[in-house]
Amino acid sequence: MITRMSSLFLRTLREDPADAEVPSHKLLVRAGYIRRVSPGIYSWLPLGKAVMENVARIVREEMNRIGGQELLFPALLPREPYELTGRWTEYGDNIFRLKDRKGQDYLLGPTHEELFTEVVKSEYSSYKDYPVILYQIQTKYRDEARPRAGLLRGREFIMKDAYSFDLDDEGLKRSYEIHREAYIKIFDRLGLSYRIVAAMSGAMGGSASEEFLAPCPIGEDTFVSCTSCDYAANTEAVRVPAPPAEDIAGHPELQVLDTPNTPTIESLVDLVNSLGVLDRPITAADTLKNVVVKVTAPGSTQAEVLVVGVPGDREVDMKRLQAALDPAEVAMFEAADFATHPGLVRGYIGPQMLRQLGIRYLVDPRIVTGTSWVTGANQPDRHAANVVAGRDFTPDGTIEAADVRAGDPCPQCGSPLIIDRGIEIGHIFQLGRKYADAFALDALGSDGKPIRITMGCYGIGVSRAVAAIAEQSHDELGLSWPKAIAPFDVHLVATGKDEAVFEQAERIADELLRRGVRVIYDDRRAVSPGVKFTDAELLGMPTIAVVGRGLAEGVVEVRDRAGGQRDNVPLAEVVENLAAR
Amino acid sequence: MITRMSSLFLRTLREDPADAEVPSHKLLVRAGYIRRVSPGIYSWLPLGKAVMENVARIVREEMNRIGGQELLFPALLPREPYELTGRWTEYGDNIFRLKDRKGQDYLLGPTHEELFTEVVKSEYSSYKDYPVILYQIQTKYRDEARPRAGLLRGREFIMKDAYSFDLDDEGLKRSYEIHREAYIKIFDRLGLSYRIVAAMSGAMGGSASEEFLAPCPIGEDTFVSCTSCDYAANTEAVRVPAPPAEDIAGHPELQVLDTPNTPTIESLVDLVNSLGVLDRPITAADTLKNVVVKVTAPGSTQAEVLVVGVPGDREVDMKRLQAALDPAEVAMFEAADFATHPGLVRGYIGPQMLRQLGIRYLVDPRIVTGTSWVTGANQPDRHAANVVAGRDFTPDGTIEAADVRAGDPCPQCGSPLIIDRGIEIGHIFQLGRKYADAFALDALGSDGKPIRITMGCYGIGVSRAVAAIAEQSHDELGLSWPKAIAPFDVHLVATGKDEAVFEQAERIADELLRRGVRVIYDDRRAVSPGVKFTDAELLGMPTIAVVGRGLAEGVVEVRDRAGGQRDNVPLAEVVENLAAR
Repeated sequence: MITRMSSLFLRTLREDPADAEVPSHKLLVRAGYIRRVSPGIYSWLPLGKAVMENVARIVREEMNRIGGQELLFPALLPREPYELTGRWTEYGDNIFRLKDRKGQDYLLGPTHEELFTEVVKSEYSSYKDYPVILYQIQTKYRDEARPRAGLLRGREFIMKDAYSFDLDDEGLKRSYEIHREAYIKIFDRLGLSYRIVAAMSGAMGGSASEEFLAPCPIGEDTFVSCTSCDYAANTEAVRVPAPPAEDIAGHPELQVLDTPNTPTIESLVDLVNSLGVLDRPITAADTLKNVVVKVTAPGSTQAEVLVVGVPGDREVDMKRLQAALDPAEVAMFEAADFATHPGLVRGYIGPQMLRQLGIRYLVDPRIVTGTSWVTGANQPDRHAANVVAGRDFTPDGTIEAADVRAGDPCPQCGSPLIIDRGIEIGHIFQLGRKYADAFALDALGSDGKPIRITMGCYGIGVSRAVAAIAEQSHDELGLSWPKAIAPFDVHLVATGKDEAVFEQAERIADELLRRGVRVIYDDRRAVSPGVKFTDAELLGMPTIAVVGRGLAEGVVEVRDRAGGQRDNVPLAEVVENLAAR
Repeated sequence: MITRMSSLFLRTLREDPADAEVPSHKLLVRAGYIRRVSPGIYSWLPLGKAVMENVARIVREEMNRIGGQELLFPALLPREPYELTGRWTEYGDNIFRLKDRKGQDYLLGPTHEELFTEVVKSEYSSYKDYPVILYQIQTKYRDEARPRAGLLRGREFIMKDAYSFDLDDEGLKRSYEIHREAYIKIFDRLGLSYRIVAAMSGAMGGSASEEFLAPCPIGEDTFVSCTSCDYAANTEAVRVPAPPAEDIAGHPELQVLDTPNTPTIESLVDLVNSLGVLDRPITAADTLKNVVVKVTAPGSTQAEVLVVGVPGDREVDMKRLQAALDPAEVAMFEAADFATHPGLVRGYIGPQMLRQLGIRYLVDPRIVTGTSWVTGANQPDRHAANVVAGRDFTPDGTIEAADVRAGDPCPQCGSPLIIDRGIEIGHIFQLGRKYADAFALDALGSDGKPIRITMGCYGIGVSRAVAAIAEQSHDELGLSWPKAIAPFDVHLVATGKDEAVFEQAERIADELLRRGVRVIYDDRRAVSPGVKFTDAELLGMPTIAVVGRGLAEGVVEVRDRAGGQRDNVPLAEVVENLAAR
């Protein structure tokens, strides 16, 4: 059956929706692909549904090709398995919880590690059963604090989540590798430009972990890549290389300086240099900035005070800090908090007395033993110089919290890094035994002894991929879908008032359909050519064919939506031409 | 890729699950198609997922054929549209409600009338836009008081719900008719035996309404059908024909009788007949039984007292009564309630004084003006005879609450009815303007005046259909799927220890796959033939092919799972034979 614009459930909008800030959101709404129902919750109208199913089909095909077996878990889940792993609590406000009529606790599944682990435990028992790869494509839920950007950060969204179950680490590595290759095929087929970057594993635990990021100016993730080697990492996952430790001997003694009116690092540096008390001029990088935060462990009601030390020329990047402390929640230390901690002198905190105050102190990896700093003296209007790590203070450990900047040295080769933004469209990681341990998922080995299973976890944001593709494939006129996921291959437009034109277009549509070309036919009689062209460009099918004035000369205009070139194709060849694109 | 039993994520069970009472539930669990996660909430394992997708595909194809356009609404829905129609309250405990992190109210969608109506209102405006048919196939939620029978009454389930939008009643009738025809095609293709019966429209409002019921001993619905004409109806929807009213004149006067020790209708009839005070012997059908219930309107906290009068040879069928009063909730009148209503003398209630007590009285349609009854005298141990409708009492209306029995006269032709049980697999009805009124869904007419849209509503229980098919297609050995929805066409079993047998089977499987025959291959080496046959019969593919001992004679045994016949097919012909089935 020919899909006709005259009866398609579709109304395009000329204006951007008021709540839309990013191009994919604006265009998917304007082109009638999605409609907002509630913050972060969308309906898929017919064209949007078609694109989403195309993405899901490609994901499914490649998952099946690596032997993945598809199943489908419920979205409404009982509390117990999530209680067992601690995630009922860890998720905090980020999951939707509810009670049934009997008062039992349920949640709307944000991810399904617990269910996958349970089902394998319930079905499999012997080492001969392994390895196995299971996956589902499912609606998931997350009560985001700030749902935004349309499909990019929703509260109801569609994910493919896969899990591998292996007997040993080598098996897990193999499973990880074949997923990595499948993901490359999937994102290639989806027509996405993407980067594979080292990643944190987040609340789900685990070790080796990579993200597939679609580079894009509005992406929520930032990532670094090296200008000379193959290093690339999510900014959260960048590990700053620690310089070698230095000798603590030979440094001058700690010296307390009067430093009134030094509200900024810059003014402090200027004052210290003007005092001439040190053996060399200092820069901001020689000062030690100490930032106080409150850290709340999941399920705890009591916040721990934590001081984070970074070189004074760096800021604490709250996203990196949060990622480093996940699943604990980080909050800023407020004036009221300082009032209850008189030992912490706001603006003049130095690490020298933190141990005495019983406050945990974590530092940037650059702050190694033997380095000497200018920092707070824990008294108003006073700083201390020659404060040596390992002599005057000893941190409780290191933390990746300092901001990462373009030009920073690559941790792999030392060349300058560059920074870009991207949308996370896939995540693969070696989860290890966290969930197998929680559920005691063992296989009986050939020697009769239990083998603890090791798991990999592999996600693709299906609905998010739709938006990511829209972000990468659009122009000022509208969407411009890669052929593999476009709702239709050809947008056939008939223009004018001449019935013969419409009859000819109808014949072309019929023939295209018979040839297996997916065609949408703009058969609207009372609509001007201008509106039809505007709609065709907004909707974004890869090819637009115009049956109209050219017909008098026996030609149909064929436009390439992405490339822009237009050809006048003789009527007799037009079906062949369109089918061959 | 060949699906192999050696790696398929499937473990069959020899024992019925403890919580399963009906065959489909037992077999779908035993055969590894589904697993229970929580009451009424199931996971679909790979084979179950495949069957469910086959059902969904057939539904989708036939919906598209009638011009239905598929979209997808969220399952997590804001309260507001359901508040507007009153259903936020009407659903009572039957929906899952929750709050997001900001305290906003949400529900998990049980049906989506509100969303369909809203989206059409938001996109369409002119009479030229209509008619339109929209549908989705989606996970739905209902907090059932008693989830039961596996997939038959679940709390998370999959539905196809379609809505038609028309400008006038004739359009709605046409839309209804084409859905009816599509449903016939769908259920025929699914291999279901079914009956189309007149139905109530339930909480969704509306008028003309039919159900598709799959006859089945464990069905929750009962339906009547006529032994001679085409009448068939859900028992809830049977309308008892009212006899013609009679003259109220000429009846003897109401007479109060002492009737001690008549705890049953039978003992009352015997006593009255033995008293010889009436001009004819009576039967139970001459007595008038009055049943008191409490009726609570949706959202109300106050129950109304209602008395229902039925002929004494009938019981009040609570399901029919509930359906007649829907969406109000009905509860029995308890001893404590009688204590607070001294006017109602338990066991001796007659309608004579109900009006005086201000209590609503609804009667079976057979209780017409001029009929004379023996009923309670509203005093302990006393009944009244010659109580004439229209003279001694006047009901407030009629109600369909009396039980319907096999042998009752057909409302259409008077022939005896028979009664069967069935599973509701589809429901179509002319919803009318209830939701269009709630949302003011109008089209602008050609004369510039608004036209209120009229809607039809058409549902199919996709997950329930899987169970209904299992109920109708199984035997003592296991499932037996119709080809159209079976996960595989052929279950190929290799037996014995001879590697040559497995090589031969592998070749057959390969060739079947190339021919487009969907094959599952039992390649397990360490499993006995008996276990393989038991599994094959339990899993229920339409054809079982056994490559084993027969190979020495150059034959493969081909079994028809449903019919049971077995053929020895020459090896050279086996692929052809299997492909032709």
